[in-house]
Amino acid sequence: MRDAYKRSLDSLRADLVEMTVLVHAAMDRATTALLDTDGALAEQVIEGDTKVDQIQMLVEEASYELLARQQPVASDLRAIVTAIRISADLERMGDNAVHVAEVIRRRYPDDAVPPLVRDTVAQMANVASRMSTYLEQVVAQDDIAVALQLETADDEMDALLRQIFVALLSPRWTYGIEGAVDVTLVGRYLERYADHAVAVGRRVVYLVTGSWPVRAVS
Amino acid sequence: MRDAYKRSLDSLRADLVEMTVLVHAAMDRATTALLDTDGALAEQVIEGDTKVDQIQMLVEEASYELLARQQPVASDLRAIVTAIRISADLERMGDNAVHVAEVIRRRYPDDAVPPLVRDTVAQMANVASRMSTYLEQVVAQDDIAVALQLETADDEMDALLRQIFVALLSPRWTYGIEGAVDVTLVGRYLERYADHAVAVGRRVVYLVTGSWPVRAVS
Repeated sequence: MRDAYKRSLDSLRADLVEMTVLVHAAMDRATTALLDTDGALAEQVIEGDTKVDQIQMLVEEASYELLARQQPVASDLRAIVTAIRISADLERMGDNAVHVAEVIRRRYPDDAVPPLVRDTVAQMANVASRMSTYLEQVVAQDDIAVALQLETADDEMDALLRQIFVALLSPRWTYGIEGAVDVTLVGRYLERYADHAVAVGRRVVYLVTGSWPVRAVS
Repeated sequence: MRDAYKRSLDSLRADLVEMTVLVHAAMDRATTALLDTDGALAEQVIEGDTKVDQIQMLVEEASYELLARQQPVASDLRAIVTAIRISADLERMGDNAVHVAEVIRRRYPDDAVPPLVRDTVAQMANVASRMSTYLEQVVAQDDIAVALQLETADDEMDALLRQIFVALLSPRWTYGIEGAVDVTLVGRYLERYADHAVAVGRRVVYLVTGSWPVRAVS
């Protein structure tokens, strides 16, 4: 019985790691599609999100089963409820990758990212990808040190988003309203993706240490 | 012991209702501040969000206590975990009200909403307020019929957001990039607010009926 219980907990974590790997790949593909104006790749991202949603439902049902049947003690209890919350954040991260892909779909075959902000968007994509790698470690191993690196990376993301807004409002912005709307949305989706990654990191820190990281996340 | 347990469950629900009332007031004030260019009211919304965050933490801790001490049966177990998830959505709804207020703060004393989209933004504000009222009923009474009305209202919200984008991309848009960025963000925050309300409604439907509403929510 206890062995089955242990296996169920391990399987729950394996599902969360799989979700993390999937949303990482989804956002990497979405930003690649964005920068390369690759409509087919964008469609793949949109279709692939079903898989993430399915695992999220599985995690939730498996968690209820564990809570109902095993009457877990305090620390396992927190781990299981935390798994439910983390799966919700990961699911939203997948949604943000889809939202980026939808911007490409709307604009295709035109570019959605004008040259003026191309480098900044590429940097945001890099930060998102790095944060996803951190997140894989955090979710797989409850690695607190890496969870804290998510906070630093999120600051980079916020700074890059501010650069985007400065570019949008500068006289050098000659790409019209349509381009401004696209870039505003893409910037916001990447920032949300990063925020959810931070939220997962903070949950893991709380789970392991019993207190929240000091920095407040808006 | 059972009486105390029942009281704890009631108190959990009371906290969720209070959160719903608070985020409703926050978004009402934020949109009023937006349409009236009222910087002081916007600041109140930003400051007031701490209260929502505090109740969310209380709900989460109280839920853990209940799960750990009372070993609730299946239906109560689902109700308690659902409370944790709902509190997270409500907290995000409060964040979206704050985000609207921050747009006002950035632009103040200028108007953030140009005349061309003023009516549409006002309609979005009305839909958000109506959805918040529905949500109060849903959270207080597990009212499934009202939960389904949230889905219809959310369709209205999405249609209004599409109108905003049409206006932004029309030749009648003479308010520049800055105005376009503000309106894109405000529209998106209101849409997210509505999406979280729908998510709460769907959780309550699932809790009561054991199955999700048919309409897929993106």
